[in-house]
Amino acid sequence: MTNMEELFKPQSIAVMGASNNPNSSGNRFMACLIDYGYEGTIYPVNPKYQEVLGRTCYPGIKDIPGTVDYVISAVSAPLVPAMLEECALKQVKAVHLFTGRFSETGRPEAVKLEQEVLAIAKRHGIRLIGPNCMGLYIPRLGMSFSDAMPHVKSGNIGLISQSGQAAEEIVRTAALRELYFSAAISYGNALDLNECDYMEYFSDDPNTKIILMYLEGLRDGRRFFDVLRKTAAQKPVIILKGGRGASGARAVASHTASLAGSEQVLECVLAQAGAILADNTEEFIDLAVTCHYLPPINGTRIGVSGGAGGTSVLAADLCEKAGLDVIPIPDDLREELKQRGVSVWDWIGNPVDYSIRENDDLSYADMVQILARNENFDLIMVVFGEPHHEHQKNTTADDYINQYRMENCRPKPAMAIVPERGTGIDHYDDWNWKIIYELRSKLLASGIPHYPTINRAAVAARKVAEYFRWKKSVL
Amino acid sequence: MTNMEELFKPQSIAVMGASNNPNSSGNRFMACLIDYGYEGTIYPVNPKYQEVLGRTCYPGIKDIPGTVDYVISAVSAPLVPAMLEECALKQVKAVHLFTGRFSETGRPEAVKLEQEVLAIAKRHGIRLIGPNCMGLYIPRLGMSFSDAMPHVKSGNIGLISQSGQAAEEIVRTAALRELYFSAAISYGNALDLNECDYMEYFSDDPNTKIILMYLEGLRDGRRFFDVLRKTAAQKPVIILKGGRGASGARAVASHTASLAGSEQVLECVLAQAGAILADNTEEFIDLAVTCHYLPPINGTRIGVSGGAGGTSVLAADLCEKAGLDVIPIPDDLREELKQRGVSVWDWIGNPVDYSIRENDDLSYADMVQILARNENFDLIMVVFGEPHHEHQKNTTADDYINQYRMENCRPKPAMAIVPERGTGIDHYDDWNWKIIYELRSKLLASGIPHYPTINRAAVAARKVAEYFRWKKSVL
Repeated sequence: MTNMEELFKPQSIAVMGASNNPNSSGNRFMACLIDYGYEGTIYPVNPKYQEVLGRTCYPGIKDIPGTVDYVISAVSAPLVPAMLEECALKQVKAVHLFTGRFSETGRPEAVKLEQEVLAIAKRHGIRLIGPNCMGLYIPRLGMSFSDAMPHVKSGNIGLISQSGQAAEEIVRTAALRELYFSAAISYGNALDLNECDYMEYFSDDPNTKIILMYLEGLRDGRRFFDVLRKTAAQKPVIILKGGRGASGARAVASHTASLAGSEQVLECVLAQAGAILADNTEEFIDLAVTCHYLPPINGTRIGVSGGAGGTSVLAADLCEKAGLDVIPIPDDLREELKQRGVSVWDWIGNPVDYSIRENDDLSYADMVQILARNENFDLIMVVFGEPHHEHQKNTTADDYINQYRMENCRPKPAMAIVPERGTGIDHYDDWNWKIIYELRSKLLASGIPHYPTINRAAVAARKVAEYFRWKKSVL
Repeated sequence: MTNMEELFKPQSIAVMGASNNPNSSGNRFMACLIDYGYEGTIYPVNPKYQEVLGRTCYPGIKDIPGTVDYVISAVSAPLVPAMLEECALKQVKAVHLFTGRFSETGRPEAVKLEQEVLAIAKRHGIRLIGPNCMGLYIPRLGMSFSDAMPHVKSGNIGLISQSGQAAEEIVRTAALRELYFSAAISYGNALDLNECDYMEYFSDDPNTKIILMYLEGLRDGRRFFDVLRKTAAQKPVIILKGGRGASGARAVASHTASLAGSEQVLECVLAQAGAILADNTEEFIDLAVTCHYLPPINGTRIGVSGGAGGTSVLAADLCEKAGLDVIPIPDDLREELKQRGVSVWDWIGNPVDYSIRENDDLSYADMVQILARNENFDLIMVVFGEPHHEHQKNTTADDYINQYRMENCRPKPAMAIVPERGTGIDHYDDWNWKIIYELRSKLLASGIPHYPTINRAAVAARKVAEYFRWKKSVL
């Protein structure tokens, strides 16, 4: 067993193929380590340069004065075998092969070269991340592989992604919903270390509370299910599988040279082992948002509030289609409304359509709290629309928040729906969108997750509820 | 048969229950007619006022000097029978009953009153829109029922909506994607005129090219399918059905007193009659966008371009799951790439992952055009990400557009994916989002529709392709 600490907490990093050409990857990896404030020592290596980005550059790894824990390789594929031999002499423990053009090309000579690389690494006990990947983003250590990743904030989500592009997009866009990462690993072709090793690391990592995985293929199915089952019993493991259909599987082969398996069998087995399965990138992040912001969802009985008319009807349909139970108003709750003197106590339903109120005898916030306190509901959803009438122009995001007071739902899980509308530049400065942006931030600040559509929230809730049911069943 | 022109082109409108109280509906209907520049004569009616919003107010409809084509009723339910008798004396042809609290309450006395209202209307040959609805939005005549509807622009979409709230949301949010309406009808309980009458009107209306329907129940199933079949053979009819599940059906009963039928049977029959079925409000608008902006989609073979790595893989999965055919790169296209000297001609796939290019021997725009020109593809999709790297800060929306030159796909249908990210207020002024807003506007201006996710675009494309296949089969 490798001590994964050496990979995930290197004291020194050498960048092979470091460069002053700003269009080269050797330059970008250097720049990222510097810009993100990597805490250890950075050694650029390239016989062409005396200095790279102000750091002394070494002709070869053997010329580096200190020890090297970790190597980032930006050299081209044919140079990798010799580079690994050099690394072995320096007693390097781990090498991240950004270098691609191996088996993913489908070309026989590249496949052969990849096997040679593996043999050399194994002979010397060097562990490999990749090849054909972006490597590690560990914000608390100042390690990053892209200038688009959040700079400072370190969170409690661990991401394991076969695709570097997906890793970057996920980390970057999750941050827009205030989700931050303990680490993100892009691991490409998984020639040596694979998804199982990384999952074990996050499983043991106290900084990581939720694990996200973007997988294209599995290198070791049996071990994967064992590790998954053990890990999922402790923390949510959310998996997005690429290459589920025939065309996706073709794309996977040319992307990370993985063999994607049969979708249905795999999904079934993954679910049995406790994984939460996402269908697409947006859902992947919705699920992370749900696990991060909400307490355990202990059932599927949902109370829906807000919206009106057609939106209430469709909210019911969409929640039900997603597998939630939009139960009728329970008798005791109806009795409570009657006792409070609500004139439409007999008419009101779930979803609550406030447009039928005859007067102000029931505030939105009161109704939300009544739903949340009622033990028949496992979960509350509040549908916010964007303000759009002239008379709402002086509304603030606080007015909006206070209308429902969703924080009063605690300890019951509660989700907010806040629309996105694909607006064009004519609407960029519209007053109502600014309120919506503020509303999103304020909701998250008070611990309430938001989702752009009822459908997306409902699907996320049902999947997370299923996970907690699974977790109970195995504990 | 009613001459529907009298409903849809009234020369004069009386507002029963007009008021100077800005919180009353009688005031809002008056204000909308005035603000939207209604071309005919407006007669406020209310014995309490001499004047409403600067117009002479009449104590009763009989006191109005001229003829009255159309009446908007904002009086309370118990007053409706007497009001209708008055309308009959004035030879009014059509009454819009905004008035609610009829059968939708589930209360026996209200159900009885509603039947009485119907009997009076029938006796006098008055046609009713509603009750319990918002009535008509006809921008070219200056008729509106909400101050949130687009003011000037008149388009070619006709909306028939059982819910007024849904009608407003649909018209308002469709406008954000540059879709405008010939008319929108909110018709509530459909006591007299129903969805069939309205569909026939739009079917014959030369201003209407696409029909949208939000339905909660059907008053006359047999006639509906006949009218639908006839109409769909001429123009797309996109239907969003509320009340598909048990809880939605309950919500429908208390919203518009409709009986929602069995979802699966209904969906099957509607599809056989040529309807394009939407699952939710967002999809409803996506489908309208697709029908409006694109030429007929004559098949499901899609070429996907843009994105990279994991996004390409997931694009393939999502398109395939939605029912599109992500065919492998055709032999003649591969040969074309080889002839052009593209170094990765043997490796490149569909979706096209540009990140594998070794040099600039294949521009994004060239590849998109090559895909579009190839007869094996029925449809092209281009996945835009938002700019997010430091070095992209000086990028403009035009740079983005010109990267792909999607207009060169013509006459082949082409869809753009432009992300939404649920951003908070900290990111309100981020440079990259402004580019995205501009990109959306510029795409639409050049006739290219945009969608926020691959999934949503793919589902819309498949459903619209199915419609055109159906249309061919019946012509």
